[in-house]
Amino acid sequence: MPALRGGVAAAGAGAVGGERHIVNAARDALVVFSPSGKRGRFPLGTPVLQAARALGVDLESICGGRGRCARCQVEAVEGEFAREGIVSGADHLSPPGETERACRERGRLRDGLRLGCQALIEGDVRIDVPASSQVHQQVVRKDYEARVIEIDPVLSLHFVVVSPPDLHEPSGDLQRLLAALDTEWGLRDLESDPLLLPTLQSALRDGDWQVTVAVRDGSRLVAVWPGLHERVLGAAVDVGSTTLAVELCDLASGEVVATAGAMNPQIRFGEDLMSRVSYAMLNPDGAARMTAAVRSAIDDLLQRALRDAGQSAADVLEVTLVGNPVMHHLVLGLDPAPLGSAPFALATDRAVDLPATRLGMGLHPAARVWVLPCIAGHVGADTAGVLLAESPWARSEYSLLIDVGTNAEIVLGNRDRLLAASSPTGPAFEGAQVSSGQRAAPGAIERVRIDPQTLEPRYRVIGVAPWSDEEGFEEALGATGVTGLCGSGIIEAVACLFLAGVVRPDGRFDPDMAARSPRIVPQGRTFAYRIRSGAPDIRVTQEDVRAIQLAKAALFAGVQLLLDRLGIERPDRIRLAGAFGSVIDVTYAMILGLIPDCPLDRVSAAGNAAGTGARIALLNRSARAEIEQRTRMIEKIETAVEADFQRHFVEAMALPHGAREFPNLARAVALPARPVGSVAAAPRRRRRRAPRD
Amino acid sequence: MPALRGGVAAAGAGAVGGERHIVNAARDALVVFSPSGKRGRFPLGTPVLQAARALGVDLESICGGRGRCARCQVEAVEGEFAREGIVSGADHLSPPGETERACRERGRLRDGLRLGCQALIEGDVRIDVPASSQVHQQVVRKDYEARVIEIDPVLSLHFVVVSPPDLHEPSGDLQRLLAALDTEWGLRDLESDPLLLPTLQSALRDGDWQVTVAVRDGSRLVAVWPGLHERVLGAAVDVGSTTLAVELCDLASGEVVATAGAMNPQIRFGEDLMSRVSYAMLNPDGAARMTAAVRSAIDDLLQRALRDAGQSAADVLEVTLVGNPVMHHLVLGLDPAPLGSAPFALATDRAVDLPATRLGMGLHPAARVWVLPCIAGHVGADTAGVLLAESPWARSEYSLLIDVGTNAEIVLGNRDRLLAASSPTGPAFEGAQVSSGQRAAPGAIERVRIDPQTLEPRYRVIGVAPWSDEEGFEEALGATGVTGLCGSGIIEAVACLFLAGVVRPDGRFDPDMAARSPRIVPQGRTFAYRIRSGAPDIRVTQEDVRAIQLAKAALFAGVQLLLDRLGIERPDRIRLAGAFGSVIDVTYAMILGLIPDCPLDRVSAAGNAAGTGARIALLNRSARAEIEQRTRMIEKIETAVEADFQRHFVEAMALPHGAREFPNLARAVALPARPVGSVAAAPRRRRRRAPRD
Repeated sequence: MPALRGGVAAAGAGAVGGERHIVNAARDALVVFSPSGKRGRFPLGTPVLQAARALGVDLESICGGRGRCARCQVEAVEGEFAREGIVSGADHLSPPGETERACRERGRLRDGLRLGCQALIEGDVRIDVPASSQVHQQVVRKDYEARVIEIDPVLSLHFVVVSPPDLHEPSGDLQRLLAALDTEWGLRDLESDPLLLPTLQSALRDGDWQVTVAVRDGSRLVAVWPGLHERVLGAAVDVGSTTLAVELCDLASGEVVATAGAMNPQIRFGEDLMSRVSYAMLNPDGAARMTAAVRSAIDDLLQRALRDAGQSAADVLEVTLVGNPVMHHLVLGLDPAPLGSAPFALATDRAVDLPATRLGMGLHPAARVWVLPCIAGHVGADTAGVLLAESPWARSEYSLLIDVGTNAEIVLGNRDRLLAASSPTGPAFEGAQVSSGQRAAPGAIERVRIDPQTLEPRYRVIGVAPWSDEEGFEEALGATGVTGLCGSGIIEAVACLFLAGVVRPDGRFDPDMAARSPRIVPQGRTFAYRIRSGAPDIRVTQEDVRAIQLAKAALFAGVQLLLDRLGIERPDRIRLAGAFGSVIDVTYAMILGLIPDCPLDRVSAAGNAAGTGARIALLNRSARAEIEQRTRMIEKIETAVEADFQRHFVEAMALPHGAREFPNLARAVALPARPVGSVAAAPRRRRRRAPRD
Repeated sequence: MPALRGGVAAAGAGAVGGERHIVNAARDALVVFSPSGKRGRFPLGTPVLQAARALGVDLESICGGRGRCARCQVEAVEGEFAREGIVSGADHLSPPGETERACRERGRLRDGLRLGCQALIEGDVRIDVPASSQVHQQVVRKDYEARVIEIDPVLSLHFVVVSPPDLHEPSGDLQRLLAALDTEWGLRDLESDPLLLPTLQSALRDGDWQVTVAVRDGSRLVAVWPGLHERVLGAAVDVGSTTLAVELCDLASGEVVATAGAMNPQIRFGEDLMSRVSYAMLNPDGAARMTAAVRSAIDDLLQRALRDAGQSAADVLEVTLVGNPVMHHLVLGLDPAPLGSAPFALATDRAVDLPATRLGMGLHPAARVWVLPCIAGHVGADTAGVLLAESPWARSEYSLLIDVGTNAEIVLGNRDRLLAASSPTGPAFEGAQVSSGQRAAPGAIERVRIDPQTLEPRYRVIGVAPWSDEEGFEEALGATGVTGLCGSGIIEAVACLFLAGVVRPDGRFDPDMAARSPRIVPQGRTFAYRIRSGAPDIRVTQEDVRAIQLAKAALFAGVQLLLDRLGIERPDRIRLAGAFGSVIDVTYAMILGLIPDCPLDRVSAAGNAAGTGARIALLNRSARAEIEQRTRMIEKIETAVEADFQRHFVEAMALPHGAREFPNLARAVALPARPVGSVAAAPRRRRRRAPRD
């Protein structure tokens, strides 16, 4: 919408008031808009939309005031407003004419509302602009989302009437369109995408010289449709190493019109990131094959989401994309090999903006992809998405943001400083490298409780409603059976074993406890705890506890480095991003020492914050500048070169933690007594450094 | 080259002076550069290149002063320069070191010259910068070219040493490259092409963190090569309706390194423009097929020129293109149908800048095509090329520029005003719609003389050196034989028949002359003149004379409209562009009344001015802004709607012209007496309006 402030004879609003009227210049009226409170005097007969534009009131219009798009719906409020010094009423607007009646009959004009471009001011009036008629309306957030998204996409639609060609004044179709956009919408000096030209001729002629255009960033003409075209779509793409997810959004309303998800087909080249980097390094066309696979899968998801929503691919003009550094590089066709070894060099640490065709997306020819910036070699565009969703810079209290994967990405800070690091947690939290471990999928135990007295377990299985000790469990379980322990199941099991004293603070099985329960069984030179007998036997072994200790110590050591660097004892709040963070019971995570001490009610799940960040960048253009600027100012801590990392790592091996106090946790849970002079076990193997997941 | 003017400690020139030296800050010396005359005092020990940069002297360097690219060659002039107050000599520079000796041994440093980046100032000295060391060197023009081209292409090359990645200071490869370009070359805030990223990683590592980059318009990083890369190429493409031509140029020197030409394969869809427009209108995929055919042929030509020059397609980063409006639209994938009927609307009348891949060119992935602007529906980008080559705006005298084809494009004007029009000459000047006519090709008669006494002809055939009455003509003719008359042959034949009185000023064969020569033979109700007997008989018929009259009358009427509009009697000079203009004898063109009266020595051929214009736009970026601005200010005259056009057309049917005087021509040639009260014959048919060729 052009900024036409002050003055009444808004030059750019020539088309406003499609139904002709005679302005009674001798008198004027006071108009007050709510909720903005903006006010001004206008000659009687001025259309409400024109008054709104003149005052800079946020009132949408695509058709430029021709009564066609029905976006500028407003309400004349009845009543006496003493503070504003007016008596207002619906009869202070001109009565509805043919245009509005037709619009109402087609169900496009809501009861009690008027079209701002058709209703003329005939007396003092208070006009309410409902949220649905505001350009910059806000999207209702999901309950785990930290941020309200203001809809201000990079693309805007404008309906315009173009002069037909004139033999006496030869000029190009494009130049007459640009002239009309200047006159009607105040859009000056627009560049135009060369891809627009082949569609321009037919759009102008098919639309009888009336077209709708899409303008990017207020500066570039990118698409044209014949007649009035009211829909432009965007997609937020989250490229995880395991799963791909697409959210298809209406760029005008911010509404998610469809979602689609799938496994990342790169899994066939390597289960985790490090094996994919290896595949790229060992095979001449390895990276290219993984690039082709993931691009094709993303396009499949986009097309599926479009089918589900009954929308046309040609209406998608904008895509945003997040992913960890290896995914980021592979999607963009960059070599991931430098990310596999020190110094872990990114090809670029800025946002990348490129044509969607370059990534093989079958969308509008002028569609572009905006890839959020990676922050460092192990801290990717997915973390940039988490940051955008969580906006830790908006608070004075210290937020700790954790996104757990093969590497854990960690951000700590507040409005003054932000630090980021990645810890090589390994895949244990995802159920890998654990004897009974598996990915979170139907059949996996996801919750575990162990009675500290009887040492008997109860558990819940993904896809099965009752707990194992509840009625109907075995029936509900059916043929799938119990196939393993996913990450949250392992964490809760180990935490419960620690609370019950089966596992000591140093992580070893207590041999004295073996006599107390048949579930504690000898295994090798030590013991295991059997959760469920059968094929397979679901157990937690000494090695499994060690794997969890290594993973949580790595995560904690990274967190501790950032706390040290900031000089604070503990964060004020913790947000756990990703699927893992949504499932895990934060109490048990803290019992294990996975996260530092913090009031338990200040620890919460952030949902798929990376994906939310991609959606924010899709719907709000200033968020793009914001994340680019913030990521540049983040202090990047490379755990691999920090001398203190090894020390913190060793100290953090104990349960819940060897050296630190957990006062908040201790108030909530009865922790086993810490043995005097206990020393945490040293890690028995060096972890191989993997790119973060 | 960064603009570092004034001051000595040129901040951006950190790399200059690859061989370390100690500056004797206590003393300085006067340095005077020629041919610029720029001068300044510098501390002893300052490298010549650094002094040149500080003074803004035009001295090229790609490698940034590392003694690698050998572009900054200069000469210390021996002698006493009283006006400059110095005694200069080669010994006022430091003696050549190892770098220069190695460079000279490899034959890259010319005798008597020094590398400006290595030679240090050791006393007052006059430094000559030879043309070959100037960035903005000028290309020697061909003799028919009106304009000297200053080499200032949109692309510049910069060698740069990039910091390797650092674990402690994580940053992207791209960001370290941008930082180095800022430090070493003063290139700030460069955007970077997303297509660069996939090649960046390997270029940096293969080049051991030394790379050469190409920067477009001083603002956009578009290409990167490992190590020092000294060549970047461009191509100027001329898309004619009959022939396609490509000139491959070295963008640094401006040198044409190869040319290639071919027939336009669209000919199989229609011989002339109007038939191609019809083909597009009558066949659903007609335009698309013609687009594919011409794009493929252009790419073939580019690849052939590259093979001939032994150059790599990946070094071509820039292409410029000219063509008439229909060719312009078909190459760009636009619908030519609107050009086929009034109001002859162009899709765009501005220059179009788009990726070369969009036109199917197999060049560097970041290569772009800049298509010169069309001016009006019948006045195309080829005329823009002619204008750029001829620069009529640089003169106070009135230039008339004519580019003859199916339509003739006409520009008339001077520094104050420029008018353009297109006249529907039809294809007669190209040998079509003429009984013995053919395209200019081996076997075609291109020159004709007829003895006014004997009425015997003599002629010259394309591909045959002797004239027909000279020894060895029949032998040289060989098997090809004489196949027809091309445009210039027809014009000269008709002009000679007029001078001999065989054809009267009204264009009719004089029946009284038939008795005088057996060459004048009855044909239908009138006569024909037989130039050569055989199979085929080469004749000029009454219908042929009429066709030439119609064509020349259309051309003349267009010219007359522009002369009228400007209010002048005749132009001061005439330039005839295109192949036709190069072959035709201007005297005979004027005898026919093809061109208006003008001193004969001020009428000349402009060569392939459209192609020259494309080359100028390729080699000089300010020429692009110039032609865009000039074409916008041109007054476009649409002959179809000008009432006077028909009147001028009818009047111009006579030979040489019915109403106008030809004093300059009359002084040079004995013209037949004009019959008293002669009236020109009215045209016997209305011409179908065709898009200009």
